[in-house]
Amino acid sequence: MSALISVLRIGHRIKRDARISTHCGLVARAFGADEIIFSGERDNNLLKGLRKVVKNWGGPFSVRYEKNYRKVIKKYKKRACVIHLTMYGLSLEKEIRKIKRKNLLVIIGSEKVPGEVYHLSDYNIAVTSQPHSEVAALAIFLDRFSKKKEKRFRKAKLRIVPQERGKKVI
Amino acid sequence: MSALISVLRIGHRIKRDARISTHCGLVARAFGADEIIFSGERDNNLLKGLRKVVKNWGGPFSVRYEKNYRKVIKKYKKRACVIHLTMYGLSLEKEIRKIKRKNLLVIIGSEKVPGEVYHLSDYNIAVTSQPHSEVAALAIFLDRFSKKKEKRFRKAKLRIVPQERGKKVI
Repeated sequence: MSALISVLRIGHRIKRDARISTHCGLVARAFGADEIIFSGERDNNLLKGLRKVVKNWGGPFSVRYEKNYRKVIKKYKKRACVIHLTMYGLSLEKEIRKIKRKNLLVIIGSEKVPGEVYHLSDYNIAVTSQPHSEVAALAIFLDRFSKKKEKRFRKAKLRIVPQERGKKVI
Repeated sequence: MSALISVLRIGHRIKRDARISTHCGLVARAFGADEIIFSGERDNNLLKGLRKVVKNWGGPFSVRYEKNYRKVIKKYKKRACVIHLTMYGLSLEKEIRKIKRKNLLVIIGSEKVPGEVYHLSDYNIAVTSQPHSEVAALAIFLDRFSKKKEKRFRKAKLRIVPQERGKKVI
């Protein structure tokens, strides 16, 4: 059985993060993760929107809410390597080599990540030490980790046929 | 002289896109672009916020607004290769090899990109043919194009010292 990649997005705020969190979910799916778990404020529209994408564009990809992010980390830590993406961490380039091909829990935060997350994680990894975006950090991490292999989605209703110009969806 | 990389974000809407556009700007800077140009609604807070990041974290990186995106594309087309990032385009993997090391204008859209953009561009490139995020698409494209080399920023007031755990900023 191949390794499972889970993403945990902590500190979601309905008003401020709706779109960024949606992008995090879409990126997690598109770049090969198996699930995303949101903590922070419960946002049913966010969950519903992402599940609709899975229904239309294929899966498997699971989307769920869990109030207590600490519980998620502690549970996953038993069977997965826990990686926290933060601009304050060590360089992706060096750290990614240490990560074995096993189950992963990849944590991305919002504005302010509680200090304990740095300590509960096995690796604190910086996708550049510059301020940018958790959406980008997640995409780059998954892209590098998967070695650019694109995931094949099953049960998709929609599929794009790549075009030089214009759009083609079947 | 080395090539200039410019990013054009079209169709910005103040209310809906404020944070996503900010992330686009931060990603453009962090992953080695030289400037970002926003079109759509003029959003002074967006420009101000990004310029503050450049002031604190270093540059050079320029941020500006241009009402008419068509004018920008036509002007840049004379001296740059115009690349439109879209899920409907051809695969990044294959297309990126065709792009020579010269000036680039990288276009990212919001929800709906006018059809003419597909025709004004030299390349329509898909960073996966799955729905995800212009923030992620831009990051992956710049990361691949720069071959993972991190940019050195000048005149920074703040700099992170990578840590295994915790935060250190000098």
